[in-house]
Amino acid sequence: MTQLSLIPKSEFDRVRASNADGDGRVALLADMCRLNALVAVKRAGSGHLGSSLSAMDVVAFLLFEELDTSRLGWDHPDRDVYFSSKGHDVPGLYAALFALGVIPRERLLRLRRLGGLDGHPDVSVPGIEANSGSLGMGISKGRGIAWAKRHLGRGGQVVVMTGDGELQEGQNYEGLQAAAQERLANLTVVVDRNELQSDKPTDEIVSLGELEERFRAFGWHVETCDGHDPRALRGAFASFRAVNDRPQALVARTIKGKGVSFMEHPIALAEGGGTYRWHAGAPDDESYERAFGELVARIGERLGSLGLDSLALELADGADDRPETLEGEPESGAGTRSQVTHDYVVNAYGDELVRLGAEHEHLVVLDADLASDCRVRAFELAYPERFLECGIAEQDMVSAAAGLARHALLPVVNSFASFLASRANEQIYNQASEGSKVIYALHYAGLIPAGPGKSHQSLRDVSLLGALPNVAIVQPASPDETRALLRWAVEEATENVAIRLAIGPSPRRIELPEAITPGRGTILRAGEDAILFAYGPVMLNEALTAAEQLERRGVELAVVAMPWLNRLDGSWLADVVSTYRHVFVLEDHSPVGGLGDALRRELEDQPVTVYGVEGWPACGTPAEALRAHRLDGSSLAESIASRHSG
Amino acid sequence: MTQLSLIPKSEFDRVRASNADGDGRVALLADMCRLNALVAVKRAGSGHLGSSLSAMDVVAFLLFEELDTSRLGWDHPDRDVYFSSKGHDVPGLYAALFALGVIPRERLLRLRRLGGLDGHPDVSVPGIEANSGSLGMGISKGRGIAWAKRHLGRGGQVVVMTGDGELQEGQNYEGLQAAAQERLANLTVVVDRNELQSDKPTDEIVSLGELEERFRAFGWHVETCDGHDPRALRGAFASFRAVNDRPQALVARTIKGKGVSFMEHPIALAEGGGTYRWHAGAPDDESYERAFGELVARIGERLGSLGLDSLALELADGADDRPETLEGEPESGAGTRSQVTHDYVVNAYGDELVRLGAEHEHLVVLDADLASDCRVRAFELAYPERFLECGIAEQDMVSAAAGLARHALLPVVNSFASFLASRANEQIYNQASEGSKVIYALHYAGLIPAGPGKSHQSLRDVSLLGALPNVAIVQPASPDETRALLRWAVEEATENVAIRLAIGPSPRRIELPEAITPGRGTILRAGEDAILFAYGPVMLNEALTAAEQLERRGVELAVVAMPWLNRLDGSWLADVVSTYRHVFVLEDHSPVGGLGDALRRELEDQPVTVYGVEGWPACGTPAEALRAHRLDGSSLAESIASRHSG
Repeated sequence: MTQLSLIPKSEFDRVRASNADGDGRVALLADMCRLNALVAVKRAGSGHLGSSLSAMDVVAFLLFEELDTSRLGWDHPDRDVYFSSKGHDVPGLYAALFALGVIPRERLLRLRRLGGLDGHPDVSVPGIEANSGSLGMGISKGRGIAWAKRHLGRGGQVVVMTGDGELQEGQNYEGLQAAAQERLANLTVVVDRNELQSDKPTDEIVSLGELEERFRAFGWHVETCDGHDPRALRGAFASFRAVNDRPQALVARTIKGKGVSFMEHPIALAEGGGTYRWHAGAPDDESYERAFGELVARIGERLGSLGLDSLALELADGADDRPETLEGEPESGAGTRSQVTHDYVVNAYGDELVRLGAEHEHLVVLDADLASDCRVRAFELAYPERFLECGIAEQDMVSAAAGLARHALLPVVNSFASFLASRANEQIYNQASEGSKVIYALHYAGLIPAGPGKSHQSLRDVSLLGALPNVAIVQPASPDETRALLRWAVEEATENVAIRLAIGPSPRRIELPEAITPGRGTILRAGEDAILFAYGPVMLNEALTAAEQLERRGVELAVVAMPWLNRLDGSWLADVVSTYRHVFVLEDHSPVGGLGDALRRELEDQPVTVYGVEGWPACGTPAEALRAHRLDGSSLAESIASRHSG
Repeated sequence: MTQLSLIPKSEFDRVRASNADGDGRVALLADMCRLNALVAVKRAGSGHLGSSLSAMDVVAFLLFEELDTSRLGWDHPDRDVYFSSKGHDVPGLYAALFALGVIPRERLLRLRRLGGLDGHPDVSVPGIEANSGSLGMGISKGRGIAWAKRHLGRGGQVVVMTGDGELQEGQNYEGLQAAAQERLANLTVVVDRNELQSDKPTDEIVSLGELEERFRAFGWHVETCDGHDPRALRGAFASFRAVNDRPQALVARTIKGKGVSFMEHPIALAEGGGTYRWHAGAPDDESYERAFGELVARIGERLGSLGLDSLALELADGADDRPETLEGEPESGAGTRSQVTHDYVVNAYGDELVRLGAEHEHLVVLDADLASDCRVRAFELAYPERFLECGIAEQDMVSAAAGLARHALLPVVNSFASFLASRANEQIYNQASEGSKVIYALHYAGLIPAGPGKSHQSLRDVSLLGALPNVAIVQPASPDETRALLRWAVEEATENVAIRLAIGPSPRRIELPEAITPGRGTILRAGEDAILFAYGPVMLNEALTAAEQLERRGVELAVVAMPWLNRLDGSWLADVVSTYRHVFVLEDHSPVGGLGDALRRELEDQPVTVYGVEGWPACGTPAEALRAHRLDGSSLAESIASRHSG
């Protein structure tokens, strides 16, 4: 990787202490934060740059000028409270908090690393006021905070940043109406209105129409301004101070990727043939150098025009270790995946879906603005008339699917597991209660990748769907098995099917038979001392690693790939485990509500020991997260050996 | 109970076949349906009259005049599709479907009975197009159906009825924007705009502001009319036929309880001192007679003015059995509860909450328009400044609580378990991930009362919250234990607490010690042959009944009241179960994800047999539902005896 340099805190102190014109100073500080956010993301190997750059001028204006938080301190009861509901713009916020001395240098350089900075906002990080990253909760949380301030007689304004695509989530409107009902004048929402969502224009996904009218119809005071112009922002916030009977919204017109020419969305969309490529993922070295150069140049110009000395950078390297990845494992992010396509179960899913689409005219695909992550873009291009883009609105997506399923269609519903199984849970219950059939593709299931943090990691989805009478939950471990399970779901299953899919690359190629039998797994490796059930490409890799290590210690561990998480063939299972004193299970899930619990329900007379993700999932590299939970092969080998001999 | 008569189908046939003026005929048919809905609810002992009467003119206009469904048949692919999203107006719809010959007389007289008609819409009932009852899903489902019709080239308009209070749910706005984006001109929403929700005016709960403006801001064509005037309704639907580029909304101005003078909301609100008492629950005999008399008189007048013969009624009784209730068990519904207040755990909850409110100034209570069902109205009256009415918007309520909890307050969040644990699941996850403390009161947990049907019965909530690292889940079995657990949650718990509460009366008084110890239950009854763990007043009653019956068969069954559903004191548990070959668990929950799974995780070497609610929860009287799931005392005694001897 290229040599990285960042702007030290002392440079921010120098600019902030200067007598330079306020608006010019804010613009300069914003660009300086842009540069450090770029460095942090490049170093992490992933992160959301487009959104960080888009919101940066607003964040800089708020934190360096408008709000009293840095003056009063982040623990002061009367402080202004700022947080971002969309959350993926957090690299920019981290850069500002670093500039203010709230986040130390070492942590800024450990973005998405264990013990560093979470990939999405988490209150364990200094300066972070609310956990976010799952969209649409911020206005509600902000109104709670504003209500608490008023109730307790505390001072301070509450300012919540939202994305515009994010405003497709219905919860926003619940928050808007409640804040208006409570006349919370100490609440302000800023919409980062760049008119783009993850990789397409909002109007192409699901239009927000006249956004200002929406806010007004929900009883809010609304202003609109250029979100990159500190003077305009200052004017809008000044006008808000005169509004004392209702909450205020500022629709800040912005450009996604602002400040780096080729990341700015008008250019980037044109270059990308209509899709935006800088939403997530770190730039390659060449793009990084170009972006860095542009920012350094403009910062230099701004310093000069304010009569300040030129910029001093410092090396971003140090004693710090480099990210360590699992074999073949890049981080999540559109840019980096295509190199090892054959090793992603989700690619097999996307390919097979297109094939099934050709064979089954009643198959329709629903998406919640994650078409490229969920690999359903190919289906969209092949069968646009059978593709429903629902926007960031999982509840609507599921209930719409329920309507389709009652009217002769077979919907395949796609989103990340953490959002789909949880936010749309009651809608799934309602659909399932109608006895129709829907396939739920739970993408990004499990602990890995662990960089985006707990809002995105899904370790509960099996428990969330397991008590539904007619939902079979499966997770394939290989591309072949993915194709076979999806085909079974479409062609044979007589109930709903939830198919969990790892989003990252498979760390090793796992050979599995092409034919599947409901309720039965595959013995990947024989062994007479103990038996371990696991599922999914990530955990089966660790299970096999554990078996290899145990073999060297003289313990023969059998490993079973078990894609059926809540449908067990009892007689097969009894046969497989009959000779073992102990059954071990490795969950890519909480130890509560996963495969282990299902095995215990079946194996009433045989002890089952479960290794799962205890507590909150760790944020970090794959290797860090697995080790943190003692679910890596070595830790597992140790645990099994001690339990086996115990 | 008073003698019941209903209008036979032949009378509807006579009116429909007449040459009477169309508008007058619709008004007449609506009143005839009102009468039969009243009879069905009276016979059932529960049901939602206010809403049925409010929507009745619209339903009659649609089903008897506007839509082609009854002509084409409910299976025809080109049929118009009508359903109600709010769903609790279903007695009125049943009455119309009975009049059309879709629902037979025997079923109409078995409302809320096993094998009869579900308390909320269910597609297993003829003429019901969608499951509803949990609010806010209908527009999304309707847009799915409309999309399917267009995609498949099928004819027919899709008409969805919504409540107005229901429009507080955020999902509605997801559905609106998506339907507008898709330009679904074959979709129409009718809002039953009576400006009242369960028992208070919408403007007092959370105002919808200028509702028409909301629809317009989301891209819909909007009309407003008198929802009790067939001519106006006809005009509105005629105008919709000219709209071919977008979906249409009709805001139908209505009166809740329309057609029965003292149930009409302007009068009823005044008589109720600002609260409306006819939302749920059957009228007492006197009110019933009065309502029946009014309707019969008006139907007579309408028949006369249309030149038709007078009305022939027939006895509603027959071979049919009378509702059988558990000892002391009335159905859910505000009107009937006050007689046995000492036997409701939820009353103890409401009382103790007021007491704790006096002692703890940081305690705040949040409600989602269920203040009287959840017994938080007393708190609202005692501490209005610490009561947050959030409207029917559970996601916003939970995220607002998250904001409060981070700012020095202790929120107690109230709703029905089926809505709170499921619809707001991701918001609870997000809150819990911040490490703050919130108390979640999961009302109406469990199978009973079973009359409202599966949208309201909550048999999954333990599984939905069980995989969260920091949520203790408890369910008290007596008023004393309720007070003790709530006090523990407020004063001692260091994590979030979810407290499950039965909404109905306790079938027997269960004596429990006042002191509680986390993780430990109480042995209610000794017995050396087998041991049964149960929780909550309903299931402990059945457990004790089973033990009594088994005793007569010479089997000594120990019964343990176990309020801790996911926090176990391992050594206490080991002691308690050590002498038993088998541990039995009776769940007021699915067998997946409840106490049984928690015991199995702890008791690795001892078989655990779980009796829980398998499949979808049955709709019926408490006794019917318990027997249907073989969870009544007699069935349990049988199961345990055969397992014990087996």
